[in-house]
Formats: sequence, C-alpha cells, structure tokens
Amino acid sequence: MTQWVRFEHKGGIGFGTLEDDSIAVHSGDMFSNPKPTGATIALAAVKLLTPCVPGKMIALWNNFHALAAKLKAAIPDEPLYLVKAASSYLAAGEPIRRPQGYSGKIVYEGELGIVIGKRCSNAGEAEAAGCIFGYTCINDVTAADTLTKNPAFAQWTRAKSHDTFGVFGPAIATGLDPATLSVRTVLNGVEKQNYPVADMILPPVKLVSLLSKDMTLMPGDVIACGTSVGVGAMKEAHNVV
Amino acid sequence: MTQWVRFEHKGGIGFGTLEDDSIAVHSGDMFSNPKPTGATIALAAVKLLTPCVPGKMIALWNNFHALAAKLKAAIPDEPLYLVKAASSYLAAGEPIRRPQGYSGKIVYEGELGIVIGKRCSNAGEAEAAGCIFGYTCINDVTAADTLTKNPAFAQWTRAKSHDTFGVFGPAIATGLDPATLSVRTVLNGVEKQNYPVADMILPPVKLVSLLSKDMTLMPGDVIACGTSVGVGAMKEAHNVV
Repeated sequence: MTQWVRFEHKGGIGFGTLEDDSIAVHSGDMFSNPKPTGATIALAAVKLLTPCVPGKMIALWNNFHALAAKLKAAIPDEPLYLVKAASSYLAAGEPIRRPQGYSGKIVYEGELGIVIGKRCSNAGEAEAAGCIFGYTCINDVTAADTLTKNPAFAQWTRAKSHDTFGVFGPAIATGLDPATLSVRTVLNGVEKQNYPVADMILPPVKLVSLLSKDMTLMPGDVIACGTSVGVGAMKEAHNVV
Repeated sequence: MTQWVRFEHKGGIGFGTLEDDSIAVHSGDMFSNPKPTGATIALAAVKLLTPCVPGKMIALWNNFHALAAKLKAAIPDEPLYLVKAASSYLAAGEPIRRPQGYSGKIVYEGELGIVIGKRCSNAGEAEAAGCIFGYTCINDVTAADTLTKNPAFAQWTRAKSHDTFGVFGPAIATGLDPATLSVRTVLNGVEKQNYPVADMILPPVKLVSLLSKDMTLMPGDVIACGTSVGVGAMKEAHNVV
C-alpha cells in the first residue's frame, strides 16, 4: 500500500508518498506518472491539505445493506446521489464550522471515498477498475435538520455543502482491496461507526462503472460511497472560542 | 454593457470583450483587474468556450411566481437548489448529447445565470450586489424522466449533471440591470419561453446574499436562477449521425 498526500510547505504546495514520519516528495501529476524528486520532508514540517482537489465530489445515499434495513429503504439498483459543492472541501484534522444561521443538528457520516485516477466515461467494470486511483477517508458532514425542512424539495445538496462539510483525507491509499476494509468513525476518542465495506450495495468498481454512464469522471474526482449505521451528532468542542 | 467571452485561438486560451465582430483581448484575470492587451481578434477566427470555468454551478428550483402558480408549489422563502457537476459544462452553440442508456425526455430550461466576481460569504444584500460580476444565459438541460424515477430519492443532481447538460454563455454581460430583462428560449427558430426576470421569487441580489450564508461563493461560480413556464422537450436533430 502507498499513501499519497498533498501538503503546504514554506508557502508552496507539493505532494508525495508517506514514509513513516516523512514525505517522499514527487513532481509532475499525482495521477499521471509522478516522479520522486529524491527530496524528503518531515511530516511535522508541513501542513497537510486535502490529498487532491476534486472537480466534483459525488455523494451516495442508501448504499449499505445494514442502513437500508434500518431505514426500511428499498435496495437501489442504481446509484442515488448528489454533488457536494467544491467550496465545502476540508482537509482532515481541520475544524468543521457551524454555518451562521443554522442551529440544528450537525452529523458525521464516516464513508469510504473512491479517488478517480483516469478519465472514465461509459466504462464497463473492467475499465472502471483501472480508472480507480485509490481510496480515502471521508466525513460527509450533514446539517441533518435541513434535509427534510422543505416538504416539497429534499435539500440534500444544501445540507451537505456548507463550508468545511466535505472532509476527506489525510491520504489516498493505493494498492489495497477495499472489500477487506472497515470504515471506523471515532468522535472524541469514542468509536461511533465500524462497518465493513463489503456490506456495500453497489461496491466501488460497479459504482464507478455506473456513475461513468451518467457523467464523465475525471482524475481527482472523489466518490463518497455513502454511510452505514451509527450516524450521530457532533457537538461544539468546549475549547472553541 | 460589456460582454466578456473566453475563447480558444491557435491552441491557446484567451479572454476579452466583444466589440462588434471582434474581441478586444485582455490579460490577467477576468474578475480581478483585467487589462486590454491592445490586440484584437476576429470573432470568426476563434472558438468560443464557456465564458468562465465555475468551481460550482448552483441551480435553483421553483424560483418564479408564474411557474410556482402553474405547479401549485408553495412560494419558498429561501433558495432550493442542487449543484450541477462540473463535467456537465458546455459552451453555447455546442451539441447537447443524449446520455447512453437514457431514452426518456430531455428538456430545455432557459434561465438567467448570475456570475460571481468576488469571494462572497455571509453577505448582506449591499455586499452581495458588489459580488456579482455579471449575467449569462443558461440552458439547464434536464433528463426529465430521471427526476421522479426513484420514489424514495428525487434525482435532481443526476438528471441535470449529464455531460453537456450545463450549457451557458456565450458571454457574461456586465453593467446591466437584470430586473429589466426577459429570458427567451428559442428552439429550432421557434420561441418557447419568454418570461420577465422581474417575476423571480428570490431576485439576484437577495439570492446571492442568501446563498452566501449557505456556502462561500467564489469568482467564476455561476448561479442558474431557475426557469419559469414553457419548459419542453428537445428532439434529436435529424442531421446527427
């Protein structure tokens, strides 16, 4: 497994692979023949950014059997999704902010993220598999009370697109089989979600294939695969001033 | 009124202002102190691109009194919207393509587009007015049969995010009052929509102010203000092979 990160260092932006406590700096394009420069930088010396800058982040609804059973939702045979606004992207470890004027519940949704590495359009599953660069961790933060506030229009995009609500990273992991993974969500040291990726209704390769028939996926695009059981509220940290 | 366009010419990308049949080329950033280079290029010599590259395109639902009355929809007191995927953007005059695997109705929705010129966050109406760079024409193309196909999840994003479904341009017009304008949609030479912008439920400045409280608007972001009465289907052109 290789872990790719993007970082800010001395006013510049770079990217590379994690090697214990340092980053092996690379040049070129993360998704197209990146080359190690030979330089390394201590992890402690950089500020990690989102590991890529997605042209779009597609977020799935109802994509785990356990959650569908709990919600008594029908099992979908195609992806149901929204797009999170690009202005919502936030690096891992950075503070999530409550939008002014919203006093309701803000929930975490721990999710597997797929990162696209190659342009992908109308792809069958074999081609789709080759278009996946790697996987990342996502907190698909949601203003839960907004979702159903208007009886005529479910506000999925708005509820999930506030600034800082598109958390992903810190790294993109390549060379691993997501079917063997679990998604764990830890809030203030307490595990809140721990569910197997294998319970996914439309698993990654199938999902990328189907989405590529709806729209062209581009290098750096991120697909938030939907959450499962255990979603709950995040409270303001006491040390926020 | 000034009309800004972006274009491809001899393999490079440029931008400038329309002057009759030519473009006064500018350098720098369209939204931040652009400077005329002194060069002009014949309009016929360039390929026009989308006039900007939005980080996000926000598309409104139910924002005209006439359409709300027709649909018997309640008048919203806040914007109801989705985000169209960045991969859907298409320059004016380019062919709209039917997605493979979708055989249903594809409709035009002629709309006013607001183009943001300055970063805009939690803005009151006076500040919001200053963040609007100008206005453009939008065809918010929609795969109408997808919208209500799944009874549990309205597929707004999917229906409006297929490649080529985010048509806008050809220009961004600055220095005009949108309340005096009408939106006209002409299909194959026949006028299909002609409605006054003044019938908008949440007019441009109010809309930008309210949206800026949901998320930060950035230079180049586009807001599709929603359509009004007269939406209908587009058929395949006979000369498509």
